[in-house]
Amino acid sequence: MKPGIPKGTRDFNPIEIQKRRYIISKLQANFEKFCFSPLETPSFENLDTLTGKYGEEGDRLIFKILNNGDFLSEARKKMPDIEQWNSKNITASISEKALRYDLTVPFARYIAMNQGNISLPYKRYQIQPVWRADRPQKGRYREFYQCDADVVGSESLWYEVNFILLYDASFSDLKIPVEIHLNNRKLLAAIAEYASIEDQLIDFTVALDKLDKIGLDKVLNEMKEKGIAQTSLQKLIPIIELSGSFEDKITRLKEILTDIEVGQKGIEEMEFIYHSAKQIGLKSADLIFNLTLARGLEYYTGTIYEIKAKNISIGSIGGGGRYDNLTEIFGVKNISGVGISFGLDRIYLVMEELNLFPESAHKKKQILFFNFGEKESLQALKLIQELRGKNISCDLYPEKLKLQKQFTYAEKNAIPFVAFYGETEINSKTLSLKNIITGEQKTLPISELETFFS
Amino acid sequence: MKPGIPKGTRDFNPIEIQKRRYIISKLQANFEKFCFSPLETPSFENLDTLTGKYGEEGDRLIFKILNNGDFLSEARKKMPDIEQWNSKNITASISEKALRYDLTVPFARYIAMNQGNISLPYKRYQIQPVWRADRPQKGRYREFYQCDADVVGSESLWYEVNFILLYDASFSDLKIPVEIHLNNRKLLAAIAEYASIEDQLIDFTVALDKLDKIGLDKVLNEMKEKGIAQTSLQKLIPIIELSGSFEDKITRLKEILTDIEVGQKGIEEMEFIYHSAKQIGLKSADLIFNLTLARGLEYYTGTIYEIKAKNISIGSIGGGGRYDNLTEIFGVKNISGVGISFGLDRIYLVMEELNLFPESAHKKKQILFFNFGEKESLQALKLIQELRGKNISCDLYPEKLKLQKQFTYAEKNAIPFVAFYGETEINSKTLSLKNIITGEQKTLPISELETFFS
Repeated sequence: MKPGIPKGTRDFNPIEIQKRRYIISKLQANFEKFCFSPLETPSFENLDTLTGKYGEEGDRLIFKILNNGDFLSEARKKMPDIEQWNSKNITASISEKALRYDLTVPFARYIAMNQGNISLPYKRYQIQPVWRADRPQKGRYREFYQCDADVVGSESLWYEVNFILLYDASFSDLKIPVEIHLNNRKLLAAIAEYASIEDQLIDFTVALDKLDKIGLDKVLNEMKEKGIAQTSLQKLIPIIELSGSFEDKITRLKEILTDIEVGQKGIEEMEFIYHSAKQIGLKSADLIFNLTLARGLEYYTGTIYEIKAKNISIGSIGGGGRYDNLTEIFGVKNISGVGISFGLDRIYLVMEELNLFPESAHKKKQILFFNFGEKESLQALKLIQELRGKNISCDLYPEKLKLQKQFTYAEKNAIPFVAFYGETEINSKTLSLKNIITGEQKTLPISELETFFS
Repeated sequence: MKPGIPKGTRDFNPIEIQKRRYIISKLQANFEKFCFSPLETPSFENLDTLTGKYGEEGDRLIFKILNNGDFLSEARKKMPDIEQWNSKNITASISEKALRYDLTVPFARYIAMNQGNISLPYKRYQIQPVWRADRPQKGRYREFYQCDADVVGSESLWYEVNFILLYDASFSDLKIPVEIHLNNRKLLAAIAEYASIEDQLIDFTVALDKLDKIGLDKVLNEMKEKGIAQTSLQKLIPIIELSGSFEDKITRLKEILTDIEVGQKGIEEMEFIYHSAKQIGLKSADLIFNLTLARGLEYYTGTIYEIKAKNISIGSIGGGGRYDNLTEIFGVKNISGVGISFGLDRIYLVMEELNLFPESAHKKKQILFFNFGEKESLQALKLIQELRGKNISCDLYPEKLKLQKQFTYAEKNAIPFVAFYGETEINSKTLSLKNIITGEQKTLPISELETFFS
């Protein structure tokens, strides 16, 4: 039998793992510094917790878990006429659990289940894998990590400001130059009202969102195809073409949306958030008012964020926004929230591409002690145990083979140091070390090893 | 809809997560110090990678994933006569993937898939969840973490010695007093040969393994019931009753098993491992030669380990041993290996019970800045950003509410410090801090905050 792994999944080798841990540790440290509490939820949820939350397409991509035991007899009891069975109507009878599709619905489920114990505003972060039966392609996997931070139970715009600071701090730590694109659902709604296309808000924004990729002409074509009238398009074009500084755009929008209440509200929010962030001062990120940003519009109700890495064309590496009533579906009403997400796999690709992983993130710091036979090995292990106690990674080669063979093992395993601890060294309480990469060799007193390796 | 989670699964709250991370970080640090490389494999494997590896009972406990798409039509194509369908014969037609049941089979699959890239001996550690459709009960979950370290591709007994050192170092770091029980499959085989019950080796050891729990009489009864003859039992009793020091036991075994080759080999291995570990010296663990230890005998071929926490009755918190041909099932022959496992959930229970989690593992170190209005909040966020940059976790309360309400939020969230940063403090470049637990309050210059919190 030739073994393989399911398509869209990955084994991670040590270097990949260390690099992923590096990213995760930076994100986690920032989540903690921003006072988010960690949450971990089970890998699978009850099927009915997940279905109906991601639209028809999403539902199809949920991995369902087959019931254990005699699932077929159970299904027959529920639907005796087997001829009537099809994949859709039988699923709930043979599967009552499913792998989580994102971290948001489990988060909402958690809040609803623990209302009594959670004091609002509740800030949580969650870094866990999710699973989707998407068609695998470059950079898209069936198992991947999401890194989310959300706060629910407050409408305070200070949280919006804090998420900008969080993005800035995290990407500054990772040394990724980014643009934080900002928009507001209220502005999009106001623009639609201004152009008399309130009923076509989704069509309008779905097309608008593609501006970067396909250009203005094609965006307008798509809007036309969706039935947006020429008179409306005429009103939209100058807004879409708005350029200049934040102040320029806001000034024009104030004029254009002057009679539209939701527009004024959106402008107010945007000004507060933008100016606060600017006055606090960002470490490295650029803040960009991007009126064409619309991601997941059906979900968001206020501020919308999207992160783009500079100097590389890879799409969004993070995003989020303000939403209402996340928990309503589980019976808990009127909880507004705002949250953001970091795209681990894309961040990884950017860091590889821009060569941003520091060597220390993945380079081994190990010593391989050569094996000179039983007596010396015992002495070596005594020393090895002592060094490990001082946080130095080291190991004894398991057999007394020719030194060349032992040396090759160190090379193949990218172990940077080999150690000679034979009779001479044992008697003189020294250790001879060779740096495999530089070829440099020196003999050190045992007492100086800790300093040498720190 | 009232939300819940599947039975046997858990949400982890912040304190539980911090405590689990504490254990995992200690184990991981030791795995790294002992030069094991990390490996991560996908949560699900191809179904045929897993089935047939865990016995009939194990197969039943594997969580299978329902194929996406029109699985029923696909199944009908493969087995058109629906009347013939049952839960057993249809599973492979509607499910081609399954959640991993342990970390060992994915490890073997990984080795077999990557033979060309792996240089032997190959040492890996893996800390990931596994899933089993076991009946949930106290301390037994359907989703739980395994923490494994293995080395394959060498028969060197130095690895056996190293695993004793690894257990000792890890449990010393966690401050859990433990006994490391040692046995050897070769000794059990030799004893069976001595008592002329080679064909009943499994029955013999399964009964023997229960000695601690049910006592000698019941063990002998069970053996009798399994058909072990009275003459054999007479030969077994003095061996089972062997007591005294390691040396006492070995001396007697040498006499008893004098003509049995595999017994002499077992004694030799045991002496080498025991004496080496003793001479290197353990930090805190006791080493115990336990002839009744037999866990997973069908699998192990040499040394067997089991860890028992002292001062608490909770069963094994770790175990492992030497095995052969782990990868044979995937077509890679003659790779001997040895490995151990740590039981995270049980270790957690022991540490809770013995009160071994240090406060620093889970206690928050956060500051909540009170909100005195927009102007002050902006200044506060500037300072907060600076402090976060110095690794101090802090946050601004989102609304200008009565101080009592803001204070209550800090209390409910176990935030130890609240900070007053009003006009006076802003002008004098100070911060007034109150320790919620002690009630102590003091005003510090901004420049001294970093020192104060470190």
